[in-house]
Amino acid sequence: MSSTTKGAGSDAVLHGEEAIIQEYLAPLAAGYPGAFGLTDDCAAFTPTPGHDVVVKTDPVASSVHFLADDPPADIAWKALAVNVSDLAAKAAAPQAYLMALSFPEAPTREWMAAFAGGLAEAQAAFGMHLIGGDTDRRPGPVTISITVLGEVPSGRMVQRGTARPGDVLFVSGTLGDGALGLALLRRPELADRWGIDAASARTAVAKYRRPQPRLALRDVLRSHASAAMDLSDGLAKDLGRMCRASGTGATVSIGAVPRDAVAVAAISADPIRWNDVLAGGDDYEILVAVNADRVAAFEAEANAAGRLGREPFAMTRIGTLDATGKVSFLGSDGKPFVLQRTGWDHF
Amino acid sequence: MSSTTKGAGSDAVLHGEEAIIQEYLAPLAAGYPGAFGLTDDCAAFTPTPGHDVVVKTDPVASSVHFLADDPPADIAWKALAVNVSDLAAKAAAPQAYLMALSFPEAPTREWMAAFAGGLAEAQAAFGMHLIGGDTDRRPGPVTISITVLGEVPSGRMVQRGTARPGDVLFVSGTLGDGALGLALLRRPELADRWGIDAASARTAVAKYRRPQPRLALRDVLRSHASAAMDLSDGLAKDLGRMCRASGTGATVSIGAVPRDAVAVAAISADPIRWNDVLAGGDDYEILVAVNADRVAAFEAEANAAGRLGREPFAMTRIGTLDATGKVSFLGSDGKPFVLQRTGWDHF
Repeated sequence: MSSTTKGAGSDAVLHGEEAIIQEYLAPLAAGYPGAFGLTDDCAAFTPTPGHDVVVKTDPVASSVHFLADDPPADIAWKALAVNVSDLAAKAAAPQAYLMALSFPEAPTREWMAAFAGGLAEAQAAFGMHLIGGDTDRRPGPVTISITVLGEVPSGRMVQRGTARPGDVLFVSGTLGDGALGLALLRRPELADRWGIDAASARTAVAKYRRPQPRLALRDVLRSHASAAMDLSDGLAKDLGRMCRASGTGATVSIGAVPRDAVAVAAISADPIRWNDVLAGGDDYEILVAVNADRVAAFEAEANAAGRLGREPFAMTRIGTLDATGKVSFLGSDGKPFVLQRTGWDHF
Repeated sequence: MSSTTKGAGSDAVLHGEEAIIQEYLAPLAAGYPGAFGLTDDCAAFTPTPGHDVVVKTDPVASSVHFLADDPPADIAWKALAVNVSDLAAKAAAPQAYLMALSFPEAPTREWMAAFAGGLAEAQAAFGMHLIGGDTDRRPGPVTISITVLGEVPSGRMVQRGTARPGDVLFVSGTLGDGALGLALLRRPELADRWGIDAASARTAVAKYRRPQPRLALRDVLRSHASAAMDLSDGLAKDLGRMCRASGTGATVSIGAVPRDAVAVAAISADPIRWNDVLAGGDDYEILVAVNADRVAAFEAEANAAGRLGREPFAMTRIGTLDATGKVSFLGSDGKPFVLQRTGWDHF
């Protein structure tokens, strides 16, 4: 680590990509020899023999995936967690990540220190190391482009397109909290309207800012899942993707969709908030299809694993896959439930 | 591939991330089974047994790394080539890449088709496949974030920080063409001032828009290099990085630095243009340190490989590494040559 520019004070603006990389990011790479302390052009990742490397890149940008005034540690956590959530859904063990940071203006030392602190916390929680970093300055929002590398035994990545008609559908945790947390950040007065207390509002905001990848499900998914994917753009849209990739349809009873207290209260006051639960996005829960023969074992083992997770969660059965080729939501009256929009699309 | 939105006509704006991915990007992934046709959350990369995976991410942005009105096929080529150039310097064989695209406005079909065409050309030239893709819309410049995966036999990545005093320094190709090509794009009248013809100007512009990763050097680097890195931010800055990582200094005779006809003419008219050659950036050539005992073999084998490359190039000896801890440039009079700036820094 260089200390030549430290005299500038704790809230000074950082100058030079190397200062950012060596002072704040290199310590996050210290545990992985193939990262070469972020002083080389590339990293050398040594795969475990007999394993595939599961890879994913999903950049996050200010005002699109997080709010500019979110705490920097939370921004860092989320940037890594949304990628690790994909690894979790594929039954992959997180190993390493690369990160390209882009700023319209050089960050302050205070911001970078908090951001690096959030990354340190997240990578320790997920069991991985930073192995490559790059920073640049360009107009537009602060952008964090992370690529994650995980591992599965060769050929054992749990896929999205291998669900079959008759499979039972499960989701982890509760849906809608992230989207409702974002709504509460934008319009705090909604808490009164929904009749929720400050602690419940904070829980929803935490779900938006600090999603918890369901890594505890790894072994259970590998043993029992027909197919799985993470929910990032909302159940309606993501389930549509699973069905399209698998050549199936699906029917979901919305009354069965697991909701936290905030979602129950929000829907009770504003039924339109069903949209946040079914199509709001930002859930980072896992959607799993399970063959009927395996449902009992899956449910028992997944719930046991969820209870032992860093953040305990349950698995909930929400519907079944069929051969209709379309996704249907049924209201509690058994009639088709029509969504206002089907999910988050960037275009 | 979906064809449901094709009725909109060839210059219509594209709507929907899935349309972009499935129509234009999925064909680039068709050759790699673990890409799952870009329909899954993640890709499964199967490493060759006994190899390390060499990884790098280096996003490029409009107006920073390319010009907004550059041909889309060239933008695509450059976005992949600048990353592959790093693999080439590490003696790694390119295998696969992931790409996240970000647009402030949805691209037209015409733009996407040309962009995908450039990618197809580049990935075929470099011997790799697209295995993961993501698109989103956000304010700011068009940004292409590529992560490349290459392979080397375990533990054999050529590093940056393993050069030693006494090593001889070489560079591939010629330096400054990319920076001068950019200068000519911005101020076409410079061609007259420098007295160069249209064909020479086009060559420099092509070097800026379509850098050629020196993949032909792979075996030679692995056999003979003490250290190597690619030149992206200019010789002065990147050589400083090699010296810092290796704990060495270096002396370079600027008269020995290989220059194409455009650089010779530009310097002759405007000696300040030495800055473009030594510190302009956008070279994407390889800087190599070679132990004195291996120089003869390296030079012979590297030049032989360069002659057989897709775009032939030579290796040129430009200086030596020493124990001074600093980088010195000597003019043709043998006196220290002082640069106006030491290289491209994003901050």
